[in-house]
Amino acid sequence: MYRFPTVLHRRKLSSNATIPLELPLSHPIYTIWGSNTDVGKTLVSAGIAASYLLSSTPPVKFHYLKPLQTGFPSDSDSRFVFNKLRQLHNRKSNHNISLSASNIVLNVSPAVRDSAKEIDRFECEDDSSTSSELICKTLYAWDEAVSPHLAAEREGFVVEDSTVLETLQLCFREVVESGVGKERSEVLCIVETAGGVASPGSSGSLQCDLYRPFRIPAVLVGDGRLGGISGTISAYESLTLRGYDVVAIIFEDHGLLNEGPLLSYVRNKVPVLVLPTVPKDPSNDLMEWFEGSHSVFSNLKEIMLSAYVERIRKLHEMPNKARDIIWWPFTQHKLVPDGGVTVIDSRCGENFAVFKDKKTEVIAPLFDACASWWTQGPDAILQAELARDMGYTAARFGHVMFPENVHEPALNCAELLLQGVGKSWASRVFFSDNGSTAIEIALKMAFRKFSLEHGLIPDSHKDATDEKSIEFMVLALQRSYHGDTLGAMEAQAPSSYTGFLQQPWYTGRGLFLSPPSVSMHNNKWNISIPEDFQSENLKHESLIFDSRDGIFHKRRDDSELAPVYSSYISKVLSEFRGSSKIAALIMEPVIQGSGGMHMVDPLFQRILVNECRSRKIPVIFDEVFTGFWRLGVETAVDLIHCEPDIACFGKLMTGGMIPLAATLATDAVFDSFIGDSKLKALLHGHSYSAHAMGCMAAVKSIQWFKDPLSNPNVASEGRLLRELWNDELVLKISSHSAVQRVVVLGTLFALELKAESNNAGYASLYARPLLQKLREDGVYMRPLGNVIYILSGPCTSPEICNQLLVKLYDRLEEFDGCKN
Amino acid sequence: MYRFPTVLHRRKLSSNATIPLELPLSHPIYTIWGSNTDVGKTLVSAGIAASYLLSSTPPVKFHYLKPLQTGFPSDSDSRFVFNKLRQLHNRKSNHNISLSASNIVLNVSPAVRDSAKEIDRFECEDDSSTSSELICKTLYAWDEAVSPHLAAEREGFVVEDSTVLETLQLCFREVVESGVGKERSEVLCIVETAGGVASPGSSGSLQCDLYRPFRIPAVLVGDGRLGGISGTISAYESLTLRGYDVVAIIFEDHGLLNEGPLLSYVRNKVPVLVLPTVPKDPSNDLMEWFEGSHSVFSNLKEIMLSAYVERIRKLHEMPNKARDIIWWPFTQHKLVPDGGVTVIDSRCGENFAVFKDKKTEVIAPLFDACASWWTQGPDAILQAELARDMGYTAARFGHVMFPENVHEPALNCAELLLQGVGKSWASRVFFSDNGSTAIEIALKMAFRKFSLEHGLIPDSHKDATDEKSIEFMVLALQRSYHGDTLGAMEAQAPSSYTGFLQQPWYTGRGLFLSPPSVSMHNNKWNISIPEDFQSENLKHESLIFDSRDGIFHKRRDDSELAPVYSSYISKVLSEFRGSSKIAALIMEPVIQGSGGMHMVDPLFQRILVNECRSRKIPVIFDEVFTGFWRLGVETAVDLIHCEPDIACFGKLMTGGMIPLAATLATDAVFDSFIGDSKLKALLHGHSYSAHAMGCMAAVKSIQWFKDPLSNPNVASEGRLLRELWNDELVLKISSHSAVQRVVVLGTLFALELKAESNNAGYASLYARPLLQKLREDGVYMRPLGNVIYILSGPCTSPEICNQLLVKLYDRLEEFDGCKN
Repeated sequence: MYRFPTVLHRRKLSSNATIPLELPLSHPIYTIWGSNTDVGKTLVSAGIAASYLLSSTPPVKFHYLKPLQTGFPSDSDSRFVFNKLRQLHNRKSNHNISLSASNIVLNVSPAVRDSAKEIDRFECEDDSSTSSELICKTLYAWDEAVSPHLAAEREGFVVEDSTVLETLQLCFREVVESGVGKERSEVLCIVETAGGVASPGSSGSLQCDLYRPFRIPAVLVGDGRLGGISGTISAYESLTLRGYDVVAIIFEDHGLLNEGPLLSYVRNKVPVLVLPTVPKDPSNDLMEWFEGSHSVFSNLKEIMLSAYVERIRKLHEMPNKARDIIWWPFTQHKLVPDGGVTVIDSRCGENFAVFKDKKTEVIAPLFDACASWWTQGPDAILQAELARDMGYTAARFGHVMFPENVHEPALNCAELLLQGVGKSWASRVFFSDNGSTAIEIALKMAFRKFSLEHGLIPDSHKDATDEKSIEFMVLALQRSYHGDTLGAMEAQAPSSYTGFLQQPWYTGRGLFLSPPSVSMHNNKWNISIPEDFQSENLKHESLIFDSRDGIFHKRRDDSELAPVYSSYISKVLSEFRGSSKIAALIMEPVIQGSGGMHMVDPLFQRILVNECRSRKIPVIFDEVFTGFWRLGVETAVDLIHCEPDIACFGKLMTGGMIPLAATLATDAVFDSFIGDSKLKALLHGHSYSAHAMGCMAAVKSIQWFKDPLSNPNVASEGRLLRELWNDELVLKISSHSAVQRVVVLGTLFALELKAESNNAGYASLYARPLLQKLREDGVYMRPLGNVIYILSGPCTSPEICNQLLVKLYDRLEEFDGCKN
Repeated sequence: MYRFPTVLHRRKLSSNATIPLELPLSHPIYTIWGSNTDVGKTLVSAGIAASYLLSSTPPVKFHYLKPLQTGFPSDSDSRFVFNKLRQLHNRKSNHNISLSASNIVLNVSPAVRDSAKEIDRFECEDDSSTSSELICKTLYAWDEAVSPHLAAEREGFVVEDSTVLETLQLCFREVVESGVGKERSEVLCIVETAGGVASPGSSGSLQCDLYRPFRIPAVLVGDGRLGGISGTISAYESLTLRGYDVVAIIFEDHGLLNEGPLLSYVRNKVPVLVLPTVPKDPSNDLMEWFEGSHSVFSNLKEIMLSAYVERIRKLHEMPNKARDIIWWPFTQHKLVPDGGVTVIDSRCGENFAVFKDKKTEVIAPLFDACASWWTQGPDAILQAELARDMGYTAARFGHVMFPENVHEPALNCAELLLQGVGKSWASRVFFSDNGSTAIEIALKMAFRKFSLEHGLIPDSHKDATDEKSIEFMVLALQRSYHGDTLGAMEAQAPSSYTGFLQQPWYTGRGLFLSPPSVSMHNNKWNISIPEDFQSENLKHESLIFDSRDGIFHKRRDDSELAPVYSSYISKVLSEFRGSSKIAALIMEPVIQGSGGMHMVDPLFQRILVNECRSRKIPVIFDEVFTGFWRLGVETAVDLIHCEPDIACFGKLMTGGMIPLAATLATDAVFDSFIGDSKLKALLHGHSYSAHAMGCMAAVKSIQWFKDPLSNPNVASEGRLLRELWNDELVLKISSHSAVQRVVVLGTLFALELKAESNNAGYASLYARPLLQKLREDGVYMRPLGNVIYILSGPCTSPEICNQLLVKLYDRLEEFDGCKN
């Protein structure tokens, strides 16, 4: 059989760039891509330059950037553009235009034979201050005329992606500077790539991936030859499959009418332009060809300028339009300040790319530190892989209905869930759409199992209306949160979400216990026990721990706290009487998310589970937030060392792509729905149950996060994530005078700000100024009242987590200072 | 500015094929695709053929199919394969192998100069019955050596996609016949495409789209030249973006080590094979090259065979695996019969492609007549477009959180919703995940508005616990269904879904009216009025209509039924007393879906809305099923001529791709959540609120369905779909003795089977044998008890709807016969 060679998948995270990668919008910037090598990208660049520089009345500036050049110095695309423009300018017809120009190469491989850096320059006779200007730059050049990754390797001059992007960023700054005082359309910059859209760059990354953080609008140079329709369409698809916007396709005519099928393919949404055939005689200086192409390039230039203007217009009008017609969740519209609407232009891995309109307009990265409501995990590489999988799955399946059917993504996903988050206890997977529905399903499952085990269903399984006099309640925790649909709400304790104003139907059908909580302060982990526990005479070492690991240790089962917990629980349960029955235990293991990132003592939760199990009360874990490495382990079961009968998953399960949730259950739970009548089945289901795209995204993400080949944070043979948060910084922050408590575990770093009663609680705006400052630092956080947190992805590097903590600490200092 | 030329987007629906397009699985079939033209597809075909035929011990058969050949007869890839095999066979080393071979061209363009059809044949000396066999076929040939679409047009010999596929289907049948009595691996068939993956076929459709209905596994011939990495990756992406599985990439070595980046790109999941460089001398007969390539081709052949075996294995084991670990919604697992699990291999437009294991194993189309729980609408073309959009959106955005943010897909989607289904009344869009959540949100909105308008909220907007003594109820209809989460369930009348066994927390917080219903029988439309209406003396013409249009006519406001309805409603509402208040009206306009496809008299619903409005009771329309052309109009508002305050949408909104729902509301509703505190905001939201992919799918689908350029069913200037269901057939079925009633409207054709009490109702299995038979006819339906229905997509052609009705009628005849 075929054997795969050993290939290392290099990871080159552009998010490692040391300066923020901002795309300026003060003037149009475009990338010129080729559907293949040798399709005339540089001719198109020169043509645009000529059309722009030689027919504009006011003086304009044109920046030509060639990031990667091989075959240098004999090949130099920037020199070609420079030379052609000089030649064209010298033509009689252009004598009235005033032009100066330069060409420079910034970095060359040591192997480049003529090691002197290329510097060319010409000035027109006129006063240069009123002349138009051409600035040509080659950023990196190699000797061999092969793909950049080969040349780089052979010449020992590999330039990492982040370096290329940073150099490009510096060039963009010069574009901005050159345009100070000028109109938007008086400066134009194009970036010409090397080879085809998916040709490797210097590091080996495909160029379409390499440049993705900037997401520069694209012009695609197509192929007019036989087979060129296919090559052009495929290249177009590779660009759009990476989220690029292609504003025009242009290609050289070879008499094959390739424009027809291309226009039909793009459904007239993208202009397709045809250039005259290029003379093949190498001695031809192309002057006539350029002149014959003038109207086409002029057309292209206009398309580029107007697409740019249109983009700017949209970016500016989006906030107001959104205010007018959108109804945001969990948002008091009246409290959204002027300028408070964020326009998200795209995302790349853990970063949003947002529109900022300050000194200059830019698209700037913003670290998504709340992981977009805890859904996000992918780095840029996984996002790109997921995008391809989404395209494939939509094309292969779209959505197909599920009952009594099976398709590969659903089956694979179910298998991975049972082998992973449900390992050792679960045997069935029920799919739904979100955490809230997964919880409603879990409750229905638990109630059925409870009913059967406690003889509350007549044998006939027929009409059970008599049973309505029995009222089922859940056992749950204070500060719990399980979702916004009524069934999920009923299982949580009263809160800001549940009042009459919000949901008149809420009654709170639970017995809600106050759990002992854990937090860190001054590098010590403290357990705080609610008052109604009989816990007066506990020893210090039962409540204070030097390390987090101590909290999770199973030997605490033998500590003096264990009997305290279990007698409290027994007491509460035995005092609970009346016609109601506790028919399920439901809880978020270890961390209560929406309730304020509270850590519950895992020993308490373990004892609670055991007490319920001994009373045949089914146990539900709500792992919608905690599942899939959020807490540093694939499932919180690995932290609290006990298993549920039913567990709910969602959010990060699809890698943060699209909604999908799953409720896992044991065989015993499943069996309580087996019978001779359909009426005994679980009559619950959503339209998109187990939709293929969601399942496929889940399959890819679940595998990705736990594979050390793709996730460098995986440690301990795939059982743990390495520590992401720097000890020292955590200590500093936890000891900070503005900080009440810290919780740090897995991908979560949370802190509660010390706040007076008015400033505490869900509706508090206390943290807002702090978070506003952090947004200026490129960190996007959202508060839970006076609790703030950073959630990284499971693959985020500790270096990035460090940077975030440093920024947070600095702003805390400032925040504390302001307060006093 | 650039002007788009007028290009007609040709629609070529492969679903118009007159025979079902089945891919046989008895033996391996592969497609050979090229990443460009001239990359050696035919050399690879010949190499596989040689490796297969000249090194197998038992006699084997190899089918080589070339569907589209241009430049004929001077170019003939099938003749090349034929000749090379003859030459290779004649080499000394292969003398011991017994081989016979043939080459034939089936259809040639009239312009082909040598109009005699090509027929070549050779037999080895041995007995042909024990020899291996090569069967080469060209299906269609044109004279000019250009792209097939150009040759076809110029030579006046355009072959439609469906014809190409049908011819290919016939060839596949011969493959199956040739393999009778042989082992799986003793027959191999390859289909070689023309040009690159996205080169147009004869009709102008891209070949990767043209062959999609078969979804044949693929071998991609890559490009080893400079730029070839990019071309190969892009071609690979075009294939996967259409749902193809590529089992191997193979290319000719040009010394550039292209395999490295390719292997890295496919993450070692797809083998990449490298062929020796092909001698460029045209006089070289390549015999040595083939011999030197033997091990590579042998490797490729093994990969193809083992991927095939693996696929078959998976298809066979999936049903049992699914039974073991999946928990299907709305399914009594015990009642799923042996062989009752359907393996869905893919979908293409309105058709599933399912695995059938009967006489021969095939992947066969099955019309998805329940539109996968009413979510589906796209034809094959829209599905392909959506797939590209999904890839783009995942790459550009993944998901980004929504509160106080805005992104293009969400804004565009909201605008389209307000201009379309919410036109003239709605001004705000709240996004959620599914119909059920959209309903819960709608109820919260309605209750708030009611509370404010009726002075039930203290001015302070603070703690409203005192108000808990007021109980809110909804006004709703019997047989209604609004979703499976508790809040949505509470708003619906008691049913099989709501008993203690299913949801112990259900109480049914509504006043549930029995509405007058409408159905068709013997071509007459009848209104049937429930008993408790005072309707004894109504005239015949008030209750019986010759046409459906009469039912919907607004002049019925002046009919004698109107006062009957309104006095009934007034009476019911005035008799409703106690501490409860009717705080919302909720209903499915016109058609009650899950309740059994019942049509409610639109006049009754209109009067109900007006009565509620006059009492300041907010009105909610549940358009989750009825929205987006299901009933022949974009929104049911256009049928019942009155507007809600709040409406819910989902299902078809994303074109049936992924979950997304929206609750639309008026300004007055929105304003009741505006205040100075966050606690007054609508504190409801799901993790993936307004996720970009869902919004993008919705934008594309909403536009597609109403644009006559993309949807040929759009009539009356975009206000109506043309009639999809044939009058005569509808009459025949509605008069059938087995049929109780028919409802036909828009994309819906529903009928209720006459059934005795035991056979009626949700849990009835009565319709099962009928639907089983229809599945054999290629129609997938699911019953609602004794009610069965067909849902087409908004773009489905009336011809296809016709075929479905004919099949249904035939099986009804049989069903009725069996019964007696």
